[in-house]
Amino acid sequence: MNNRRDFIKTISIGGALTAIAGTSVIASETNSKVSIKDLDTGLQLKICLQEGVAPGATLTEKLDFIEANGVVGFEVWGGGLSERVTEIQKALQNRKITLGAICAGFKGWLIAQDEKNRKECMDTSKEILAAAGALGSYGMILVPGFNGQQPSFATVEARAMLIDQLKELGEYALQHKTTVILEPLNREEAWFLRQVSDAASICRDVNSAGVTCMGDFWHMTREETSDMGAFISGGKYLNHVHIASRKTRNTPGEDEGDNYVEGFKGLKMLNYQHHVSFECGSKGDKKVVIPAALKLLREQWKMA
Amino acid sequence: MNNRRDFIKTISIGGALTAIAGTSVIASETNSKVSIKDLDTGLQLKICLQEGVAPGATLTEKLDFIEANGVVGFEVWGGGLSERVTEIQKALQNRKITLGAICAGFKGWLIAQDEKNRKECMDTSKEILAAAGALGSYGMILVPGFNGQQPSFATVEARAMLIDQLKELGEYALQHKTTVILEPLNREEAWFLRQVSDAASICRDVNSAGVTCMGDFWHMTREETSDMGAFISGGKYLNHVHIASRKTRNTPGEDEGDNYVEGFKGLKMLNYQHHVSFECGSKGDKKVVIPAALKLLREQWKMA
Repeated sequence: MNNRRDFIKTISIGGALTAIAGTSVIASETNSKVSIKDLDTGLQLKICLQEGVAPGATLTEKLDFIEANGVVGFEVWGGGLSERVTEIQKALQNRKITLGAICAGFKGWLIAQDEKNRKECMDTSKEILAAAGALGSYGMILVPGFNGQQPSFATVEARAMLIDQLKELGEYALQHKTTVILEPLNREEAWFLRQVSDAASICRDVNSAGVTCMGDFWHMTREETSDMGAFISGGKYLNHVHIASRKTRNTPGEDEGDNYVEGFKGLKMLNYQHHVSFECGSKGDKKVVIPAALKLLREQWKMA
Repeated sequence: MNNRRDFIKTISIGGALTAIAGTSVIASETNSKVSIKDLDTGLQLKICLQEGVAPGATLTEKLDFIEANGVVGFEVWGGGLSERVTEIQKALQNRKITLGAICAGFKGWLIAQDEKNRKECMDTSKEILAAAGALGSYGMILVPGFNGQQPSFATVEARAMLIDQLKELGEYALQHKTTVILEPLNREEAWFLRQVSDAASICRDVNSAGVTCMGDFWHMTREETSDMGAFISGGKYLNHVHIASRKTRNTPGEDEGDNYVEGFKGLKMLNYQHHVSFECGSKGDKKVVIPAALKLLREQWKMA
């Protein structure tokens, strides 16, 4: 369609990718050249477990399980995080485990019509971001608004409102050496932000290094036509990944046909360095199904 | 986020892709295996010009220009197409040019609140689809609703309404051996459908072989963070491509830095067989700038 073309301001394409085979360097439309590693060598799958996913009655038991299974990441809930900084720092001492993302925990929401709800989200997010930064986390997961959070602005106004607030929140995150990570959810949870490409588009519009996005294989199963396409669109903004079984959101491998190879190919193309973190329930005994999942995912990572 | 996970029905991922290097076969989550051609060999760039883009005072002059420049496709406007079938058939006789997509031309819009506007779109689209089929076109481009077309339903209701009507329109298109091609536009024209991944997601939800989507490099410049990611998400639904210069929507190459390599890589990964069609204005003499554009695009296709 050819309407109104004259006054549309062109924005540069910022994808910091893309290799097809071997070590490859290409220039995206206006960005600097980016070198991408060979797909077949080197890049490690860095698996992470959420605190609630790891089996164990105590933090120590959970971290022992994580370490014993060669998992390298640990993800905690953001609610109350500022009071747990010392506890978590101590628990991670002398372990080969890093804290990756902090999972949500904020209150309120940013696309709320009521300023009170937006302010609550900004205030609680900042408190979590400060704690996240102190813990060396690379970002706090943020959902702009769940379907049930009403009244919210409609799409266009919501997006403008969100971007304004994310500029502020992104700068705050950067001051604390961390980021905000936008999470697209499936339509049953949040119609406002459903696809990784849209989250990346918001990041580009915000234009702050403190605002990034993520993909969750569970939500992507419903919303994305291609895991690879979604991650490539996430590009340089892609900062975190969640994983679960694809039919029931249990441990990867607990549903028949669980397959992440196409998505892993996309992550390899991006030279993705952060965690693939388990956010899931389990049907079987965690001490059995989690090691089985790790085996499956490591095999599929090799295939990718 | 972990809410409401139990009752969400899982929908299979349908991307019919993906190769990284060499001839590769992989299975997507639940689809059948699809073979993808080697990226470095064989696949041709099939360039197409819209009727208004090709220079010439008559249809014959336009088609002579197209043929003389090794362009293989011709795209016409859908408005009044049913009265032009014989004219166009005759003009294309004994030429190495095929009609690819038919560009819009319908009236009304499918996400209108008023049933009258929706019916007008259905009726006029069907008339064009019948003519498109008679001409051997692979599809009619459809925009679900422009920003200026009001009142329209809000996002969620609009999508549901659209999908219902597309089921009917897709079946009608199939009866005429053609398709509907959803076109995402940039936000200045249509907030409702801005990204190829979202158009593909609508196609999947409609689940009719008669409903497909496209990408237009011009709109993608504004809306997509990655041309490659967008096309890969389009996947098996990607049925047509428009191209223009990236800053001013003129002939490719007329803006400094015009670069389509990343997108072309994506098209090669899909083994994309249809046209890349010029929908653009021109700054310079068309008889100079179009051949220059063809040279540029053929070079960039080779680089991809």
